[in-house]
Amino acid sequence: MPVIKGPQVFPRTEFLRRLNAVKSEMDRLEIETLIVGNSSDITYLTGYTAKSSYVPQAVVISMKEEEPTFILRRQDAPAAVHQTFLDRKNIIGYSEALIGNPLKDGFDAIIDFVHEARAVERGIGVQLGYLSSRSAEKFKSRFKTARIVDCTHSVAWIRMIKSDLELEMMRDAAAIADAGVLKASEVIRPGVREAEVMAEIAAQLIRGAGGKEGTDLAPMTLCSSPRTGTSHIQWSEDVIREGSQINLEIAGVRHGYVSAIMRTFSVGAPCDRLRRLHDAEVSGLEAALNAVRPGATCSDVATAFYRTIERAGFQKDSRCGYAMGIDWGEPTASLKDGDMTELKPNMTFHLMLGNWIEEDFGYVISETFRVTQSGYEVLTKSPRKLYEL
Amino acid sequence: MPVIKGPQVFPRTEFLRRLNAVKSEMDRLEIETLIVGNSSDITYLTGYTAKSSYVPQAVVISMKEEEPTFILRRQDAPAAVHQTFLDRKNIIGYSEALIGNPLKDGFDAIIDFVHEARAVERGIGVQLGYLSSRSAEKFKSRFKTARIVDCTHSVAWIRMIKSDLELEMMRDAAAIADAGVLKASEVIRPGVREAEVMAEIAAQLIRGAGGKEGTDLAPMTLCSSPRTGTSHIQWSEDVIREGSQINLEIAGVRHGYVSAIMRTFSVGAPCDRLRRLHDAEVSGLEAALNAVRPGATCSDVATAFYRTIERAGFQKDSRCGYAMGIDWGEPTASLKDGDMTELKPNMTFHLMLGNWIEEDFGYVISETFRVTQSGYEVLTKSPRKLYEL
Repeated sequence: MPVIKGPQVFPRTEFLRRLNAVKSEMDRLEIETLIVGNSSDITYLTGYTAKSSYVPQAVVISMKEEEPTFILRRQDAPAAVHQTFLDRKNIIGYSEALIGNPLKDGFDAIIDFVHEARAVERGIGVQLGYLSSRSAEKFKSRFKTARIVDCTHSVAWIRMIKSDLELEMMRDAAAIADAGVLKASEVIRPGVREAEVMAEIAAQLIRGAGGKEGTDLAPMTLCSSPRTGTSHIQWSEDVIREGSQINLEIAGVRHGYVSAIMRTFSVGAPCDRLRRLHDAEVSGLEAALNAVRPGATCSDVATAFYRTIERAGFQKDSRCGYAMGIDWGEPTASLKDGDMTELKPNMTFHLMLGNWIEEDFGYVISETFRVTQSGYEVLTKSPRKLYEL
Repeated sequence: MPVIKGPQVFPRTEFLRRLNAVKSEMDRLEIETLIVGNSSDITYLTGYTAKSSYVPQAVVISMKEEEPTFILRRQDAPAAVHQTFLDRKNIIGYSEALIGNPLKDGFDAIIDFVHEARAVERGIGVQLGYLSSRSAEKFKSRFKTARIVDCTHSVAWIRMIKSDLELEMMRDAAAIADAGVLKASEVIRPGVREAEVMAEIAAQLIRGAGGKEGTDLAPMTLCSSPRTGTSHIQWSEDVIREGSQINLEIAGVRHGYVSAIMRTFSVGAPCDRLRRLHDAEVSGLEAALNAVRPGATCSDVATAFYRTIERAGFQKDSRCGYAMGIDWGEPTASLKDGDMTELKPNMTFHLMLGNWIEEDFGYVISETFRVTQSGYEVLTKSPRKLYEL
């Protein structure tokens, strides 16, 4: 029996609006077919969030068709029918014989489809930057006569500016991230295992907030003493001790959209240096936000932060954040010195001010924010404090 | 202050044994330097499990040096010092200026290091299959005179055979997966939200089992009615209803090592077709396991399953599993028709018998197993039943 369509997160008009923006870019690039294999771009263009991108799959957009065609593994096609706005005739499952097959893979099926159903004379867009060299060679050799245009980040740049419906997802995700921070403040205590803290936080991030559930779980990071100078460690097998510092990075997820937050926790009174760093970072965070407005650049925002903490005697050598949306970071703009990307209304960023200033000493704070018509809206709402527990 | 080394999960001798196996392969391939960028391979070679692989990083192995050198982002170097067996002089953090930089990235730092510190005359191994075409071009153009050998899966094939210490990790991870299944059987009830079920399961997978905590959370899948013909959907916003079927896929994780399990749950009495499919699949699972022994092939195992369920009137068109270890699936052998990889003692597999036979009807069961000297050891221990709740 055919699978039924599930409840649609966005109306069809929203997806057609996104597709029209992509088609305008295709027109500019003088291509008539665009092959989109990046999983976050696929979520953006169709609503598909199932985790099947470890095998080849692609949305093929043609200037001649209103809807694109989604070509993916046969096993995953029912999920695409269920989750996406696409008509089922535009979802094509390729043979399971192409899985774990050293000679032919799903990209062959995708290329076959383009050859059979589309003209490529005017040019074809491919996300070369996401393809392995072997797969890129396959595209080049099998589209021998076509002009291939590298469109690696074309959809990502369009994704940067969120619609009101997308912003609603990001706000809900931010509320979930805040609920995770609140839960952390309730469970971080001396004698509690780090795993127990993360078990409670993970459960909260799935239960969600405000009646909205977390629809996925993004990576979670807990770096505690003596690891506060590290980032990207999930958690350790340690027990939280009196005097421990805990750097937490978590996120809420709603239908692919991610809002992240970082906060620092001190079990017992923080040392003077940590307190001074916290004060400097909060001042820097406020200065960075005050630099946010349409027409300012990513570099302006970062510079405002760097200059503020330098006045307090601190430095940060990593970037101050990045564009944020589907599946966490977007591969476009960074809040860093020299990134001249101009801010526009409804761009969203993770203002990531984690600062690992020595091998054994670091501090984290971050917010997810949106650029408004005249300034900024911070989506995450947790108190900007050094949590003392 | 320098960060201290954390508790080491494996002794130094274990890592040197793994490195020696890689060096034997390098000798066979006539290369004197191997650049390993795949994050699972890096975990295998060093013990590093922090989640920083979204930017370039690599372990550089030289035939002339006992220890390799780990080159990664400056921000992540303290985590490498803390987590790995490597001497700190063999951990090199590259500049943060290479992050979000369209002109130069971490691969330039890695190539610089190889040029400065190593001879490459005899040949250099690169994991071309994991590199984007642009990065692969960079390697080729910057090692112009060297013979480049594609070593994409060289370490993965070595990883396939686990040591006793690794098997201990996989057994502990399997016990955690089993605890997740038990938790699912306790919380899946009519009226309970799917998110609540997953919140409880996620918390259990982190709390762990037998005094061993889950050190990470692998992707979790819950596909319920009317989605039992789909795979790879995380969970939905539905409430579990009387008569619902739930297909669950979860895993336990210990220090990078993953053991997975799938089980099917029926709220109320299952329909006759589901019961028949379950019976056929369990018979097929047993037939597949009975085909496991050193010298048999992956194809033999899959064929035993396929023939058994065919006798009961069912078919499965997807493969029956894959090599399993660090970060879930390994990119080597598949349990599928025609995969002539020979089974050897201490290989580990996910015998994945999920069978999505119609768009709206599927069933899942799986085990993680090890090849022994004479047969098999199943690491996951949950009852092979259709859970009726």
